[in-house]
Formats: sequence, structure tokens, C-alpha cells
Amino acid sequence: MSGSSDPTPERHRVVVVGGGFGGLYAVRKLRHAPVDITLVDRRNFHLFQPLVYQVATGALSPGEVAAPLRGIFKRNENVSVVLGEVTGFDLARRRVIVDRSVTESGLGELPYDSLIVAGGSRYSYFGRDEWKPFAPDIKSVESALEVRRRVLIAFEAAENERSPERRDAWLTFLVVGAGPTGVELAGQIAEIARDTLRRDFRTIDPRGARILLVEMDDRMLPQFPPRLSARAANALEQLGVMPMPGHKVVDIEDDFVTLADPSGREERVPAHTVVWAAGVVASELAGRLASEADVGVDRTGRVPVGPDLTLAGHPEVFAIGDMAQVHDSEGEPVPLPGVAPVAIQEGRYAAHVIRERLRGKESRPFHYRDKGNLATIGRSKAVADIKGLQLSGFLAWVIWLTVHLFYLVGFQNRLLVVLRWGFSFATRGRGARLITTGTGGTVGTTPDEPDHPRGPPRERLGSGRN
Amino acid sequence: MSGSSDPTPERHRVVVVGGGFGGLYAVRKLRHAPVDITLVDRRNFHLFQPLVYQVATGALSPGEVAAPLRGIFKRNENVSVVLGEVTGFDLARRRVIVDRSVTESGLGELPYDSLIVAGGSRYSYFGRDEWKPFAPDIKSVESALEVRRRVLIAFEAAENERSPERRDAWLTFLVVGAGPTGVELAGQIAEIARDTLRRDFRTIDPRGARILLVEMDDRMLPQFPPRLSARAANALEQLGVMPMPGHKVVDIEDDFVTLADPSGREERVPAHTVVWAAGVVASELAGRLASEADVGVDRTGRVPVGPDLTLAGHPEVFAIGDMAQVHDSEGEPVPLPGVAPVAIQEGRYAAHVIRERLRGKESRPFHYRDKGNLATIGRSKAVADIKGLQLSGFLAWVIWLTVHLFYLVGFQNRLLVVLRWGFSFATRGRGARLITTGTGGTVGTTPDEPDHPRGPPRERLGSGRN
Repeated sequence: MSGSSDPTPERHRVVVVGGGFGGLYAVRKLRHAPVDITLVDRRNFHLFQPLVYQVATGALSPGEVAAPLRGIFKRNENVSVVLGEVTGFDLARRRVIVDRSVTESGLGELPYDSLIVAGGSRYSYFGRDEWKPFAPDIKSVESALEVRRRVLIAFEAAENERSPERRDAWLTFLVVGAGPTGVELAGQIAEIARDTLRRDFRTIDPRGARILLVEMDDRMLPQFPPRLSARAANALEQLGVMPMPGHKVVDIEDDFVTLADPSGREERVPAHTVVWAAGVVASELAGRLASEADVGVDRTGRVPVGPDLTLAGHPEVFAIGDMAQVHDSEGEPVPLPGVAPVAIQEGRYAAHVIRERLRGKESRPFHYRDKGNLATIGRSKAVADIKGLQLSGFLAWVIWLTVHLFYLVGFQNRLLVVLRWGFSFATRGRGARLITTGTGGTVGTTPDEPDHPRGPPRERLGSGRN
Repeated sequence: MSGSSDPTPERHRVVVVGGGFGGLYAVRKLRHAPVDITLVDRRNFHLFQPLVYQVATGALSPGEVAAPLRGIFKRNENVSVVLGEVTGFDLARRRVIVDRSVTESGLGELPYDSLIVAGGSRYSYFGRDEWKPFAPDIKSVESALEVRRRVLIAFEAAENERSPERRDAWLTFLVVGAGPTGVELAGQIAEIARDTLRRDFRTIDPRGARILLVEMDDRMLPQFPPRLSARAANALEQLGVMPMPGHKVVDIEDDFVTLADPSGREERVPAHTVVWAAGVVASELAGRLASEADVGVDRTGRVPVGPDLTLAGHPEVFAIGDMAQVHDSEGEPVPLPGVAPVAIQEGRYAAHVIRERLRGKESRPFHYRDKGNLATIGRSKAVADIKGLQLSGFLAWVIWLTVHLFYLVGFQNRLLVVLRWGFSFATRGRGARLITTGTGGTVGTTPDEPDHPRGPPRERLGSGRN
């Protein structure tokens, strides 16, 4: 039926699970090799995770941080893309089980000769999944749009609210977790309040918004050297963010967050808008792979792999990226951060091993080349830790910008993002600050579902007129 | 609390309901007048309706066809924006009732001295609302994204499907209504199949997709002169769309559409993806306004207004745009098309009348200046009917392009759209073809809700390998 050439049945079959950084770069490195590749993902696009928080703040549109997987590999006829959710592995029969109910096609099996699993990570709620509805994360496009909706609705609600206490709760934004994502998000919410929305309202002053950045560790950006953490905290304060190191989240309710300060004293903070960016754990695929291979997972759910990134007893199965814990030849765990460069290098390495094996060659163990650590704080500041060189301020921001644009997939996306950022930089505006709601099934004429109606009925509107 | 100057209580208060073309241009024309303006909309953005169909086809992102209302009027301190749904009018007490449950603020009232109601229109399903879930429209951002999801999923499902009949049903797209929106949408779906996705799949050839454009009238674009209708039908066929004039929709089910041909013979067409673009009726606000003023609505639910666009007995209440039926000084209805230029001119006119009245002057009756009618068909073709001059082909398309860019609100949007279109034109690609689902409440790790699982379980995947 298709015009493409029929694949030769003798070719080595590689299945890659996950179209994130690890999977994407593995396929890229494999596509010119004499193999047939099947890339499975439950989404039809690669998501540029480091910039998803900018969707949550209306700085970028979803289409600008995502690239359709089929489009990336359209010219590589040995690459097939399957839209479906991997639900299990049959390592003995060398099969991947795929649930394709999104296309109403039921379960299917993908046979492989080599398998690369790159399922990534997700946020854990420390076992408190009941917090989720009150504190969405910004891992997926959908949850980022939900955060965007909540942030924008909060200012609208504050504008309508006449009780000072309730207005303050609407104008309090609490971000949980001060890793790069939490820091970047808190900084952008502060900029929205101070710059973007500054003149948008008539009864409130958005600059009065409080942005709290809660971190369990005793400093912001605990992954960075202490000197850069201090710089980051300083830059955040200048933007109007209140860093709260050493604070633990004890409970999250609809309108309140209960925090424990470093001394253990609890405080109930009225805050309507809470965003979760803490507690990264491995994808559930790590656990499924581990139990199938009869090995245990580590504290954050990662599956152990050897120096060549393969599973014990299964040299044909690679696990890479956030869901894998690499061990050296002595069996000691190698500490690697959960960042895109690790996943990219591991993806390329796994592809390299497969190619070398096909030529009958062996490969050296995986070695991570640490190119440094970056986090941006607001419009023109960042911190960079590059091989011991610690930078902060504008120069670090230029590095951040360059690196992110370089890795952003797709020429069109890159140009659109540059353009958007150029506009935002010049005008302090944000083009994509739309309040939209779910599309799932509801296509009626009243898309705004009422939340919990509150406040006195028939209250008078208008600018203080009676 | 706000830094803005307190409005003088004696100023004339204008409430504008609806931030579409009519309301937007009314506020624009009023903002420098000595009045206080309150603009109410249930969405926080102006939607550039003529291009929403491009969101449905992944050519543009929602942020590119929408502009935040507060942003548009941020520098006009006499303009307040209220986010809420107007649920009623109290014409005697001169109050608009607003449901603000989206911001949890309950009901409120907006007092006015002059009122402009511009509620627009919506698609009717000819009283068959049960068809809605099977045939979303493309009126809102949400429903356009739902259409985008369905169109993209259809190709994915066809790729997974092994039964030829079911595959054909997935590759059949049926658009109901051949007005400009239906024609433009059908043309773009054909381009997606023929160009954008051409090399994306391995087991299907997207060029085999059938796109049916069903129209009750005996020709495509019945609003245009017959010669242009013929040209449009010709251009559609060249793109791979099958025009079906004189066909009525009898029933829509999950996987089938029943059509009656011009002779009345019924046929059940297997089609998974159906888009609705027919049967425009006035916003429900027209009915509420009419019953409050004790007048009747017309066949499509529009409220009657006089030559000055005001309601009988209420010279302070204007109704404009798609929801109003203008009558001349003899009481005869004036036939005006339901297009943006009518709404824009009516909005400006209503603002003009209010300004003149404040100076003690009377205004001449509203007169619509017809600048012509445009519709585009695919990448570089259009039809234009400009004051009797009938154009088609590339020149008409350049006119279409220029006019749409000129009216697109916001400099940033305009540039982004030009850039997107430039890319699409050069590469035949579409950047925003993401399959995303609703955000409403669900922020879990498995955002793709399973539809109706179907097909044999554990079916083998892969390119025909066994």
C-alpha cells in the first residue's frame, strides 16, 4: 500500500521506547545504520522539556516546544513511529507490549533484536497523590497549560475579589521545588506580575503578588555549587520571589498549603495557585523492566544497568536516561544528574554499541562528558557551572540561550522561539497568555466549566462605583 | 489599590458585551472618548475567527490567532475588562448580569448608561445536538484543537489498522457545510494528506485519504456568485476534495454519516472524522435581549434592531454583529452577511452614535459598505468577489492574505503568522500538529484517555513482518 520500499526481513530490528531526549538521539544515531527502527511513544511529538515551563507562563505556545516525531524522521524509511503506550516487556520472547487504544487498535507486540528503553521520569508527590489536583506539575503540555490557566485565572479572580484576605490568597503563588525548573518558573511568574500584567488590571496591582519558592534543601538550586545558589537566591529576591529554603510541604488543600519551617514549626499559608516541581522519580517502565529481568530498582525507582547501559543478563536490552542507574565495572553506582545531556549521551552511546556489534566490534564503557549545568532566572540572568567555572548574570544567560536554541529540535521551532523571546524581551509581553480549558469530548458553547462558585451573589462589579 | 487614576463618577458608562470583532472595534472607537468602558467576555482573549480553522489543521497555534483582551487595552485606563459570562439583562434598571464563577466570584451586575451587545453566533446542529460529540465544530480554540486531535489520530489509527474497510473509514474525512470555513478546512485537510504527512507513514499512503465536502445548497460557497462557486469546486477537486452539493446530512453516528443525495436516496458513509461547519444561529444573548425588550427573534435567533442598531424602545441598547438583524427606516429587514466586516462596521457605528450623542448630535442610519467576499482554497488559490469584480486563483489568494494579515490583531501575532505561513508554503509542513488532550482537571501521567478499544488483542505490529 505504501510507496516506501519493503524492509528486508533479515535486517536487525531495534525498538526504541520513548521519544524524549534519550530515545530521539538514539534513533538519530541509528538511522543511517543497516537496521530497522521502531520508535514507540504515547505522544506523537518530542517535547523539549527544558522549555515547557515557558508554556506554563504563556511565553511560548505548545507547538513551539514540541516537534512531531514522524516529521523528524520522515525521510528515514527505516524508521517507523508507533503511537501507543508501552505497558510491558517480554524479554524472553524479545517483544514489547504496546497499548494502542488511543487509535482504537487494541494491544500489539513489537518484536526486537535490540531494545532501547528511554521512559524518562515524572514528578512524585511523595506518596501524597491527593495533592495532585491542587498542585499540577509542568511535565506535560497538558499540565503546563493547566498551570497557565490557573496563573492567569488567579489574577482575574483577584481583580473580581473584594475581600482583602481572599484577594491575597489569589495573589499568592507557591512553587514547590527549587531545582532549575522551579527556579525558572518562579522567576517567570514574578515577571508576569511585575511586567507583563502590570497595566492590565484596574482594581488590583499585579506587582503586589507574592511568589514563594519552597525547597526542602537548605538552599536554592541544590545541584549547583553553593556560591551560585546564593547568587540565584539573590537574583530571585530582586525579581520579587521569596526563596524559602529548608521548608517542607506538610499538606496541600484547595486554598491552603501547610509548610514546616527549618525548626519544624508549621504554618498554614493561604495560596490558591500551587505548582509542583519536586521529587523526580523514574518512569513506571523502569519497574516493569526490572521485575521482568529479576533485578530491583533504586530509591527513585530507577533500573540498574551496567557500564554498557544494558540490563543484567540481557546484553540486547538498554535502559537510558532518567529511568536508569548506571553502574561501573566494579558494580558501583555512578552518580549522574537527571538532565537532558545525560540522556542524549546515553542514547547516542546505546546506538553506537548496537552499530559496533553489527560490525563484530566491542565498545568501551559509557563515559559521561559533563559539559556543565545551567539555570536561568528571569529575563536576562542565569547561573552556569561549567567544568568548575562558575558564572552568573548576563553572560551566563547568553550561554543558556545559545545552548537551549542549539538543542531545540527543528529549524522552524528555533526561529519562532527566537522571535517570541525577542518580542518578550523588547516588550516584556507574553503572547500566549490564553485561558483555555480541556478539549476532551466537550465541544459545547460554554467551554468554561464553573469551578466552586463562591462569594456573595449579585455583588456589584465596576470600579468601586455604587 | 491600583495606581491608575480613579474614574470620575459622572462619566458616561458604556458596557460592551463580547470581545469578538464587533465588541473589539466598538471599544477601539470609544476608548479616547470621555466615557468609562467595561468590556465583558467569557474568554480572556479576542479570537481571530477567520483563521481558527488553521488551528484545527495544525498550521497555526492557538496563541497565534488570539490576543489577550487586557493586553489590547492595557494603555486605556478608561477600559476595564471583566472575565465572566453574561447571563441576562435588566433593561429597566440598566444592568448586565454577569456570572463570574470561572473566577469563583459568583454573580455580579454591571450598570450602564449605554450598552453594546455583540454576542456573535454559533453553529446549530439543526436541533440534533446528539451529533455534536461525533462532529465537533471549529468555532472555539478548544473545539479546533479537538478537531486537530481527531484528524491526526485518524491517520495514526489508519497506520495501525489492518482491516481495509476500517482503514478506509479512518481515512475518510467529512466536512459538513461548504461556506468559506468548510471550504478552507476541507482544502487544508487535503493538503495535510497530500503534502504534510506524505512521507510520515510506513503502512499507509496518506494521499489515499478521501475528503468529502457536503453542502445542502446546490453549489459550493453559495454566498458567492455561481461562477466563483464553479471555480472553487474545480480547485477543491484538484486538491483531492470531493464536493457533494445538494446533499443533506440525515444522521451522524460514531463511525458513520448517513447522507441523502439530491434525489433523496440515502447512503451510509463510513467516516470516523466529521467536522461541522453549517447552520449558523445567533448567540443565546440575542434571545435574552429580545425577550427582555418584548420583541421576537428571527428564524436564526437574531434580535431585531432599527436603522441606528438599537433595540425598539431602548435607544441606549445596541445589538450588533451576527446576533442582530438590522431593519431600515421602513421596518424592512436589511440582508447582511454574517461576516467580520459587518460586525466591525456595526461596532464602529454604535461607538460613533454614542460619541455623537454625548455632543448632543444625531447620527445618520447605519450603512454597510460591502468591500467584498473572500475565501481561500489551499496553498495559493482563492476566490474573491469585490464589488462585482470576480477573481480567482493566485491574485485572489494574495488579496485574501493581505486582508487577513491587515485585520489580525497585534503586531506580534501578525509576524508569527507570516513566518508560519512562509514555512508552510516553502516546506508544505505544519509545525503545530500535536495530538494533545484536555487539560481540565486531569494532570496525571497518562493524559491520553483510551477511547473505545477495538480490534484483535495482541495483534502484531511492525511493517508486515510475521
